[in-house]
Amino acid sequence: MSGPKQFYDYVDANQDSFIQRLSEAVAIPSVSTDPARRDDVHRMGSWLESQLNKYGVTTRAVPLGQQELEGKVLEYPPAILGRIGDDLSKKTVLIYGHFDVQPADKSDGWNTEPFQLHVDRESGKMYGRGSTDDKGPVLGWLNVLEAHHTLGLELPINLRFCFEGLEEDGSQGLDELIATEVAKGVEGWFHGVDCVCISDNYWLNTRTPCLTYGLRGIAYYQVVVSGPASDLHSGLGGSIYEPMTTLILLLGKLVSVEGRILIPGIYDGIAAADSSELQKYQDIDFSVADLEKIAGAPIALSEDRVTVMMGRTREPSLSLHGIEGAYSGAGGKTVIPSTVSGKFSLRLVPPQTPEDITKKVLSYIEAEFAKLNTKLKMKVELLGGGNPWVADTKHWNYEAAQRATEAIWGQTPNYTREGGSIPVTLTFAQNLGVNVLLLPMGRGDDGAHSTNEKLDISNFINGTKLLGTYLYEVANISAQK
Amino acid sequence: MSGPKQFYDYVDANQDSFIQRLSEAVAIPSVSTDPARRDDVHRMGSWLESQLNKYGVTTRAVPLGQQELEGKVLEYPPAILGRIGDDLSKKTVLIYGHFDVQPADKSDGWNTEPFQLHVDRESGKMYGRGSTDDKGPVLGWLNVLEAHHTLGLELPINLRFCFEGLEEDGSQGLDELIATEVAKGVEGWFHGVDCVCISDNYWLNTRTPCLTYGLRGIAYYQVVVSGPASDLHSGLGGSIYEPMTTLILLLGKLVSVEGRILIPGIYDGIAAADSSELQKYQDIDFSVADLEKIAGAPIALSEDRVTVMMGRTREPSLSLHGIEGAYSGAGGKTVIPSTVSGKFSLRLVPPQTPEDITKKVLSYIEAEFAKLNTKLKMKVELLGGGNPWVADTKHWNYEAAQRATEAIWGQTPNYTREGGSIPVTLTFAQNLGVNVLLLPMGRGDDGAHSTNEKLDISNFINGTKLLGTYLYEVANISAQK
Repeated sequence: MSGPKQFYDYVDANQDSFIQRLSEAVAIPSVSTDPARRDDVHRMGSWLESQLNKYGVTTRAVPLGQQELEGKVLEYPPAILGRIGDDLSKKTVLIYGHFDVQPADKSDGWNTEPFQLHVDRESGKMYGRGSTDDKGPVLGWLNVLEAHHTLGLELPINLRFCFEGLEEDGSQGLDELIATEVAKGVEGWFHGVDCVCISDNYWLNTRTPCLTYGLRGIAYYQVVVSGPASDLHSGLGGSIYEPMTTLILLLGKLVSVEGRILIPGIYDGIAAADSSELQKYQDIDFSVADLEKIAGAPIALSEDRVTVMMGRTREPSLSLHGIEGAYSGAGGKTVIPSTVSGKFSLRLVPPQTPEDITKKVLSYIEAEFAKLNTKLKMKVELLGGGNPWVADTKHWNYEAAQRATEAIWGQTPNYTREGGSIPVTLTFAQNLGVNVLLLPMGRGDDGAHSTNEKLDISNFINGTKLLGTYLYEVANISAQK
Repeated sequence: MSGPKQFYDYVDANQDSFIQRLSEAVAIPSVSTDPARRDDVHRMGSWLESQLNKYGVTTRAVPLGQQELEGKVLEYPPAILGRIGDDLSKKTVLIYGHFDVQPADKSDGWNTEPFQLHVDRESGKMYGRGSTDDKGPVLGWLNVLEAHHTLGLELPINLRFCFEGLEEDGSQGLDELIATEVAKGVEGWFHGVDCVCISDNYWLNTRTPCLTYGLRGIAYYQVVVSGPASDLHSGLGGSIYEPMTTLILLLGKLVSVEGRILIPGIYDGIAAADSSELQKYQDIDFSVADLEKIAGAPIALSEDRVTVMMGRTREPSLSLHGIEGAYSGAGGKTVIPSTVSGKFSLRLVPPQTPEDITKKVLSYIEAEFAKLNTKLKMKVELLGGGNPWVADTKHWNYEAAQRATEAIWGQTPNYTREGGSIPVTLTFAQNLGVNVLLLPMGRGDDGAHSTNEKLDISNFINGTKLLGTYLYEVANISAQK
């Protein structure tokens, strides 16, 4: 262990109070996409800021502007910036996390109240919205700060924090904030940052820690088909063009059941994996059974583990999310909906970008709509997007994280790419020009964004030790080099 | 005018109080499909019963049993049966109507509160849920009863009433009730009924009254596709079979954009129209522009008025209503839904029946699902259905209605078939073995089941006169024959 013994002892001795703090955090329903919960996101930001202050971190709440939503003007929750340590002889690590969460309602299929942390000591799991995405990891950092502050231990590196409350709503304003701070030069909040560490993803399985060096990008679209001035009684069926029929046919032209995207040119420029990259995938401790455990059913697209892992992380994918404006309740309603909006998104890999992909998506859907030759109206638009990202794994940032992982978990981490997107990763990499590391806390079955989201107690406690140890490893390596 | 002058004078003099009574009825949100509003449906039934009693009608509220809904046991609203007159020398007319309504919420796009009748004197329109479907017509009969009761006029025929509170929820229990009463023979409530009159549909346009002699049947289905144990983060996309992709492809195989149903054998046995039937369609005062006015947009499937009318009334149609279980809100949510249920229905014409059609629908969808060769699960099921119906228009019941229409509106009515379904029509025709007439009160642009449902004041008042006159014409014809 490269950290001081007192640190590890403190973490072991304070497990219950760390869990109590996680309960407090989960109890604030900071759902960023729900205007009715906007005050809770603000409250969560204030709570986090006061915690940071308690442990000696200087903070600044940066306003990110306003939005007009459903006729009301709402303040965006501020980003909470933090800094502790200004020793020029030390490395400076920037930590990112987010304090907002996905929507959740017990009626969605939760076994317990989503905004009350349910600690199941028998299984060692803690259930609640945000437990793993991303309140658990953010609180891991608070645990590290608390231990050092309480013990009077000096941190081995300088720390900078950037916590946001809009990650689940497209990280509004964050790119501008980062660019602004960078443009300030030596006066900027992120000046002197040597590397970035983000703990906002998951192990690929439930056994093996991992370091993540790649993320897929995203491009989210809606196709709106309209016709009648209002919803119509379906007794009119057979006499008019119906928007749902057209929308369903358009959505059916996007992707095959096997996940092959049917939009021409979408795979252009994506290089096949070379032998060294294939080897990396071979080395990963992940089976088709692991995937099917995460999915909860035997529905893998292939029986070959490498094919499945590559399909999830280094190939683009297209998912159909739903339809707005059509009947979505239980039972039957005999209505012809007047305006329906199909939602779908693509996960992107280099060299794909939302800009490039959008041209192809729009021209394909417009051409397919024209072929249908209806009298309806169609509009397809990009709702949001982010570029994919791949990092250099030979950097000392990864070396430090690998050593810390080996020390805490006794295992060499898998080097993985993720199927999901965390757009800010790329923003940091591009704006700061430093190496970015994803160092996950939770496991592959945590169910982020899903019902019954959980974090294992062992991952919360060992994760706290891992984050602390990583800081000591960064200091050690920098001292050696 | 075949009715007494006092009757018409009374109706003219009491317009405001008739409208006031309609306001009272609309203010009771008797939404039968919403468990939270079940008490209001019961309340509406009691209100109607007390109104009938006030005008000398003997009533019986017939319990229709219970249902379990969302874990609660709910009483079905009773059917309200009524009878007035037992003169064996007179004809006996059975009147049907319903006192429940479709769901409505201002946020759906209503300009005014749906459960407050908004009387716009300038345009002559009364807006509110149930104004035309079917509280307006039901209250038309109350107006006729009130006039005769108050004036001390004897009704020219015997009347029987059958009002239900579950029409919008599949008329649960009504078929059994009718069958039971018929099985009682001379003791049954409907004994001696010579014909049936139902006022629960609409003119085909906004100018010409009509008599309706045909209705399409319905068969309502859901296709459920499931796979993952719970909703998944779309970062998993590209590694698993996704239920939405499969569902969308299946729904896309049901109907062409031009409304042609793609299920093999679905059109079997439907005879082409002969020249006399074609002539009936030619005679109808209805243009493509009329249809497009109802739809609110130029989206007719054909430029030929007869093709459009026949597509709506004497051809089957298939409408896609929506998807349960997928994301249906505004904006984006990056989720792969675990279980999705596509809702669609077919409108049926003779000789189609839900039983016959269901076999074809199930075997087609099962075969198409098998072809897709996924690892997902699929289930398709019939949620409800009703047979189509066509009546003999040469019957004296239609003759009486035509004369009454000519007297009140000064126009020969169009003879039309409807695209929608009123299953009880067929139940009466089959169980009582008598002629059934649909005598609509409202216009083609009333927007039943839709936002901003309305009834024109002139249709409410002239409609009241029409219903009364129809009774006198039935009496006259029966006296002549």
